[in-house]
Amino acid sequence: MTKTVLNKITVIGVGLIGGSFAKGIKKLGLAKNVHGFGHNPENLKLAVELQVVDSASSDMAEAMQGCDLVLLAVPLGAMQPVLESIKPHLEPQTIITDAGSAKQSVIDAVQNVFGELPKNFVPGHPIAGKEQSGVTAADENLYVDHRVIITPTENSSEQATETVKGLWKALGANVEVMSAGFHDEVFAATSHLPHLLAFALVEMLHEHPELGNVFKYTAGGFRDFSRIASSDPTMWRDISVFNSEAIAKWLIEYRDYLDQMIPLVQHKDAQALYQLFETAKNARDEHIVNR
Amino acid sequence: MTKTVLNKITVIGVGLIGGSFAKGIKKLGLAKNVHGFGHNPENLKLAVELQVVDSASSDMAEAMQGCDLVLLAVPLGAMQPVLESIKPHLEPQTIITDAGSAKQSVIDAVQNVFGELPKNFVPGHPIAGKEQSGVTAADENLYVDHRVIITPTENSSEQATETVKGLWKALGANVEVMSAGFHDEVFAATSHLPHLLAFALVEMLHEHPELGNVFKYTAGGFRDFSRIASSDPTMWRDISVFNSEAIAKWLIEYRDYLDQMIPLVQHKDAQALYQLFETAKNARDEHIVNR
Repeated sequence: MTKTVLNKITVIGVGLIGGSFAKGIKKLGLAKNVHGFGHNPENLKLAVELQVVDSASSDMAEAMQGCDLVLLAVPLGAMQPVLESIKPHLEPQTIITDAGSAKQSVIDAVQNVFGELPKNFVPGHPIAGKEQSGVTAADENLYVDHRVIITPTENSSEQATETVKGLWKALGANVEVMSAGFHDEVFAATSHLPHLLAFALVEMLHEHPELGNVFKYTAGGFRDFSRIASSDPTMWRDISVFNSEAIAKWLIEYRDYLDQMIPLVQHKDAQALYQLFETAKNARDEHIVNR
Repeated sequence: MTKTVLNKITVIGVGLIGGSFAKGIKKLGLAKNVHGFGHNPENLKLAVELQVVDSASSDMAEAMQGCDLVLLAVPLGAMQPVLESIKPHLEPQTIITDAGSAKQSVIDAVQNVFGELPKNFVPGHPIAGKEQSGVTAADENLYVDHRVIITPTENSSEQATETVKGLWKALGANVEVMSAGFHDEVFAATSHLPHLLAFALVEMLHEHPELGNVFKYTAGGFRDFSRIASSDPTMWRDISVFNSEAIAKWLIEYRDYLDQMIPLVQHKDAQALYQLFETAKNARDEHIVNR
């Protein structure tokens, strides 16, 4: 298998996600130039010093010049403005991809900016992260054995799709292709919903000062359950807003599920509760591996 | 400080919780005899072999003879039957304590069996556990730096209360005294509610075969959030039934909280969502230490 080397890859937003992508590409020599774009000169300087990128700038014309592929690794709320600023400098060969946690909203943003879905646009979503954030946490191995979802539009060309897939695979990721709609539905259920539920629980308990410092009585179970409530509020605000339809659907279903569970508890329906807990335990034990 | 050595301590139910208590008492020499009672001869044999207890039996008369303190470390559903079987053999000096996760229900069981709340009855709840269970997981250090809640009744004598507190403190625990009602309220909020929410989420997703193996798309956040859904269904059935009032109250409040959250998502109320997430993040970061 011959290695395809691109001339220039640009990463917009050199934080954990964009930085890890850039650093991996650079280490593997998959582009002659890995360029970082951002608005914070300190951060860009650091990105170059840490060898996350070869070069960096806050000038979009420079960032996009001769670029074969641009990765948008910015919050969902910044996607459309960034696309607007890319547009005047976009060259015909440039493939556009992204790392957004909700896919239809990015597709809508591209449609809004370009009036169409370009054949060189291939949305993506790497499922990776770690406790730390920012360029200092960038890790060329972040995506190894992690899932990356690609959601090509009906216009995405095979060549562009294969290029995007190939880069993630080269970084060690397990690439999976699905529709944006299915992606948004599934991740609303498995990621967005649990985050909102954890935020809600912590916030609700926080609103009960009469219990004293109620968190003092929490143990390991609560710590694990609520860990995701320490996630970045800006990111989760954006996800909630940009995948609101699917999230609201799941929140409503979950609320309805609780509506059915409450009388079981009130009426001490031991058998029904046992069955529910056992089904959940078996499903989790079968499918989720604790690490 | 002189060490008070009891003649005989009996542990009913030699699993992780009872076994760890017994093993710690035995190591510290806080009783001349640490006796284990249970119905499974294999388990009792193992408890003696592993030096968790000095002696063991399935004969309640033998277990309670000359006993200074008995710890009931059985599921909440077994408390009342065990108390019934203890009653005919109870000696005047025997202090009764327990390790149940809900306190009022144990107090009710004692009242039902004895027709009063004996002065030697001191309810307790050690907040500890680990992934493994059973006597083989018994660990004399399980309670070190863990919280143990004591909820004396209006009849509990000071001497009995101090004896129970002293033993837990000797095992390294941080002992805290509160009312049974406050205990049940606080643990319904911080432990029982999150467990039920996690069970509910996993079970709900499991009921969506049209999404394929939806768990395949979960990442670390979901793994952490749902870990407690792998808990013992029997134990959680009992907790749900024996603390049903407080749990139902919190489930309803949480359901109502979601009712208020759903329109924020539907209407993409970015500011309100941000504020909620930020409050939750700050509360968690301030109060919960990740380990």
